[in-house]
Order: sequence, then C-alpha cells, then structure tokens
Amino acid sequence: MLSVILIGAGNVASHLFNAIKKSESASIIQWYNRSIGTINPFQNDVEITDDLSALKEADLYIMAVSDDSIAELSNALPFSNRLVAHTSGSVSIHQLDKKHKRAVFYPLQTFTKGAAIDFSEVPICIECLEKENLQVLKSLAEVLGCKFYKINTEQRQTLHLSAVYVNNFVNQLYRIAHEISDAKSINFDILKPLIMETARKVQDMSPYMAQTGPAKRNDKKTIKRHLKQIESEEHKAIYQMLTNSIKKTHGQR
Amino acid sequence: MLSVILIGAGNVASHLFNAIKKSESASIIQWYNRSIGTINPFQNDVEITDDLSALKEADLYIMAVSDDSIAELSNALPFSNRLVAHTSGSVSIHQLDKKHKRAVFYPLQTFTKGAAIDFSEVPICIECLEKENLQVLKSLAEVLGCKFYKINTEQRQTLHLSAVYVNNFVNQLYRIAHEISDAKSINFDILKPLIMETARKVQDMSPYMAQTGPAKRNDKKTIKRHLKQIESEEHKAIYQMLTNSIKKTHGQR
Ligand SMILES: NC(=O)c1ccc[n+]([C@@H]2O[C@H](COP(=O)([O-])OP(=O)(O)OC[C@H]3O[C@@H](n4cnc5c(N)ncnc54)[C@H](OP(=O)(O)O)[C@@H]3O)[C@@H](O)[C@H]2O)c1
Ligand SMILES: NC(=O)c1ccc[n+]([C@@H]2O[C@H](COP(=O)([O-])OP(=O)(O)OC[C@H]3O[C@@H](n4cnc5c(N)ncnc54)[C@H](OP(=O)(O)O)[C@@H]3O)[C@@H](O)[C@H]2O)c1
Repeated sequence: MLSVILIGAGNVASHLFNAIKKSESASIIQWYNRSIGTINPFQNDVEITDDLSALKEADLYIMAVSDDSIAELSNALPFSNRLVAHTSGSVSIHQLDKKHKRAVFYPLQTFTKGAAIDFSEVPICIECLEKENLQVLKSLAEVLGCKFYKINTEQRQTLHLSAVYVNNFVNQLYRIAHEISDAKSINFDILKPLIMETARKVQDMSPYMAQTGPAKRNDKKTIKRHLKQIESEEHKAIYQMLTNSIKKTHGQR
Repeated sequence: MLSVILIGAGNVASHLFNAIKKSESASIIQWYNRSIGTINPFQNDVEITDDLSALKEADLYIMAVSDDSIAELSNALPFSNRLVAHTSGSVSIHQLDKKHKRAVFYPLQTFTKGAAIDFSEVPICIECLEKENLQVLKSLAEVLGCKFYKINTEQRQTLHLSAVYVNNFVNQLYRIAHEISDAKSINFDILKPLIMETARKVQDMSPYMAQTGPAKRNDKKTIKRHLKQIESEEHKAIYQMLTNSIKKTHGQR
C-alpha cells in the first residue's frame, strides 16, 4: 500500500484527494493545509493538520500548492531524505529543497474545484532526480488509471506553454465567437457541436491534416468579406494574424 | 414520404446521401452530379444522372455544390416554382434563381468525405423566403435527427465567420502547440485530453466563465517567462495578441 501525504487543498489537491481515496492500492494518510478551514469538512475521512511539525512519515509527499510557495514550503518541511513531489507545470524540480528526494508529478489537465474530472483522461508528467524513485511515481499514476510520461523540466515547461495555446488561447477564440454571434442575436449553442468536432478531429489526425477553410484555400473573396463583416478592430487583427499563420503553414505565401 | 433530389456529390452531399438513405420518412429519388463518375458506384442504390434535363419532380432539391456555382447552376435548372435549397454558410439566399421557391439548408459542421459524422450532432440552419416552405425543411432536419434553427442570411454569414474562429483558427492553435512541443521531442498525445476538456467545458459553461491561466490572472512573471521560451517570432506575436485579448476581456487593462 502506497502511503501519501497531501500538502495543499486547492483545485489539484482536492481532485487528487478524491481520486486517491477511491483507490485500493494507495491511501492518503494525512492532509495538510495552511488554512485548516478548507479541509475541516474531511476530518472524518482523513487525518488533517495545519501544523508542519505534525507531519507523519509517508512514501510520497505531494505538494499541490501555488507555484510561488513551492520553494519556501519545501524548505520548511521538517524532515529530509523523503520523496517530495510538486505538481506544477512550470516550476523547476530544483526549486524543491535539496534535502529531499525531489520529484514532479504534473497532471496536464485543467482542474476546477467542483467540476468533475475523469482521472483516466489526465496525462501525468513525471520527473525525478534519482532513478530509484521513479517507481513510486509511476505506481501512483497507475493507481489513478492515468497515462504517464517521463518528462524533464525543460520539456514540462514547454508543455505548460503549449497548454496555454490549446487551452487559454483556444478558449479566448470561443469567447470571440460568442461575442460575434451574440451581437447578431445568434444562440451560441449552434456552434457547440463544431467546437467538439474540431477537438475530436485532432485526436486521431494531425492538426496540419485537419485544417480546412478559407485561409488554407487562400480564398481571397471569402477572407475579404469576413474582414468587412467583423466590427471590432481587435477581432479583425486576430483574424488577420491567424489567417496569415494558416497561410504560412500551408505554403500559401 | 418526403422526396428529395440531391445535386452535387462532394463532402456535404455524400454525407446527406448516407443519412437520408437510412431514414424511413424521406427518400432520395435521384442524384445529380456534373461528373457522373463520382456517383456511378451508387447506381444500384439510387437513380443517378449527369443530365439536368432528366431531373424529376421532387418535394425538395438540395444543391450541395461549390459556393461559386450556386447562382449559375440554380439558373440552369430546367423547371420553376419548386423548392430549391443550397447548403452554403456564406451564399445569400438571393443568389438562387428567382424562378424557384428559394431556401437554405446549412449544416453547421465540418464534413470530410470518408470521416464518419453523427448527424444528430449537426445543427441545421434553415432559411426560406415563403413561410409555407419552412415545414418541408424542418421535416428533413427532423428525419435526420438534427437540431434546427431558423437563421436569416445575415445571421448565417455571421455564424460562418464565427465558425472560422472556433474551427480553423482553433485548429491552427493546435498546430502551433504541435510545432512547439515537437521542437522539444514531446509527444503531442499528452496534450490531447486537455484539448478535449477545453472544448467540453464550454458545452455547459460560457467561455468567459471557463477562462483560466496567466493572462486572465495577469501573472506577469509567467507571461514573461513564456515569451522568453518561444522561439518563433510568429508564435510570439500570436501569444501577445491573444494574451492582450484575454486581459481586455477580463478587465486586466
Ligand atoms: N489548477 C490547475 O488546473 C492545475 C493543473 C496542473 C497543475 N497545477 C499546479 O498545481 C499546483 C496547485 O494549483 P491549484 O490550482 O490547486 O492551486 P489553488 O487552487 O490556488 O490552491 C493553492 C493551494 O496552495 C496553498 N498555498 C498557497 N500559498 C501557500 C503558502 N505560502 N504556504 C502554504 N500553502 C500555500 C493554498 O493554501 P490556502 O488554502 O491556505 O490558501 C492552497 O491550498 C500549482 O503548482 C499549479 O501550477 C494546477
Ligand atoms: N465541407 C463542409 O464542411 C461544409 C459544411 C457546411 C456547408 N458546406 C457547403 O456545402 C456546399 C458543398 O460543399 P462541399 O464541401 O460538399 O464541396 P465539395 O466537396 O468541393 O463538392 C463540390 C460539388 O460541387 C460540384 N460543382 C462544383 N462546381 C460546379 C459547377 N460549376 N456545376 C455543377 N456542379 C459543380 C462538384 O462537382 P464535381 O464532382 O463534378 O466536381 C461537387 O459535386 C458548399 O456550398 C459549402 O459551402 C460545406
């Protein structure tokens, strides 16, 4: 049985808590949070604490805390030579205090408290400094039913950057389409199946192969009409920039 | 029984053919294409022709042909006063010849020959000039199990524009993430669950509410580090433009 102590009680920690609790081959033996109020409701399910000096011994400590607090908090942990993993996409493994066996357990997914998440759909990016600790991290990923990938810090930071494009920026394009359609009293629901299909298509086809539309065809007439239709200068600039990007990718200029 | 004649044999027509063929309350009584070769394989399933003068009488003629050919071909149809619908997102209903009962049957989805599509996931945008023809169009949408929406030409052209943002432009962001991760030998598969979840999230939450990330939080440190990481000037410009767009949407400037 893999024993885990959870540090932090935000989006990621809450989802990890629920997922590990369900498993039979790993257990959370203690849950720490700086503000005890957040984890008080769970005191019948798990031992809770807001006192670092009360932390027990465990196979793995998962620090799912804000990026900026990882270095200092890892230093404040009153023990050494135990396996400590943070969950951040962007923080270097070297920000963890040297006294620990350092590791990263980065779930590449978007978590929101309350919103259900299927862990089998969460890829875990694993990194550790000593090879012999890899097995513990892998075991936990397997317990959760996750796919896992060995990813070093530079690669992880690149994934974090890529995630901004496919998550934050894509979502902003959804937002712009929402603004454009709202302005003409069009129900945004009409666009939802297309949004799903666009994401589904690249699950088994490269984005390069999946591309269609006026920019790829270099259909100047349609592009010109679209630009005339767009009312906001900001939306127009984005239209032009992404149209040029598609043209460049597909050799149209 | 609703009788339909299909004109054209491209992506949209092929999918409509398969979907209508399965139904019990509508039937395709004839299939026309300019090049008979494309529809020859179907001659045992349906009457085929490449001769406009051989066209029979039907409740509805669907012209799923290239945008640029709609006006001329509708004029060349050797009959009048029958219900003729095109399937384009951008062509005005008035481009159909006046001698017909004019209509639009625009499926807002991305079709590719060969790639399966679930028609119950295709919203149909319906338009017609005389109210009494609406029922035929609605019936066909119902027969296919589609949701349908009454949409006028201006709204349809706005939807077509919005679709460029949520389909072509979103797909280009997937492509850029692919380029960025490839450059560091990262398997693009790791990003696929996030791509799906990002699309799924806005199915029951507005894109505004769904937004997260450094731009929304105005996390200057992360944004600066990301900009330093990005190697291509083009990717950088897109990062900056969309970051500013998110900031503006969420009142960060
Ligand atoms: N959210 C996501 O989608 C996601 C996805 C993958 C990875 N991550 C990474 O996972 C980690 C946690 O993210 P999150 O979204 O769960 O964050 P969150 O919801 O904002 O929660 C932050 C947690 O960190 C604690 N904390 C903050 N500053 C602290 C300090 N100085 N000392 C002790 N505890 C402190 C907070 O405690 P209080 O309750 O006392 O404030 C809280 O429990 C981050 O490294 C993040 O980059 C997040
Ligand atoms: N593809 C999509 O995702 C999608 C989605 C919604 C709406 N639409 C709209 O649906 C319509 C058809 O699109 P598609 O993707 O199916 O097109 P497509 O695959 O390119 O097929 C075009 C069809 O039009 C015929 N055609 C072209 N020029 C013609 C002419 N001058 N005279 C007679 N026939 C001609 C072609 O005949 P040949 O076989 O002889 O070349 C072919 O059958 C367009 O209005 C498009 O905007 C497409």
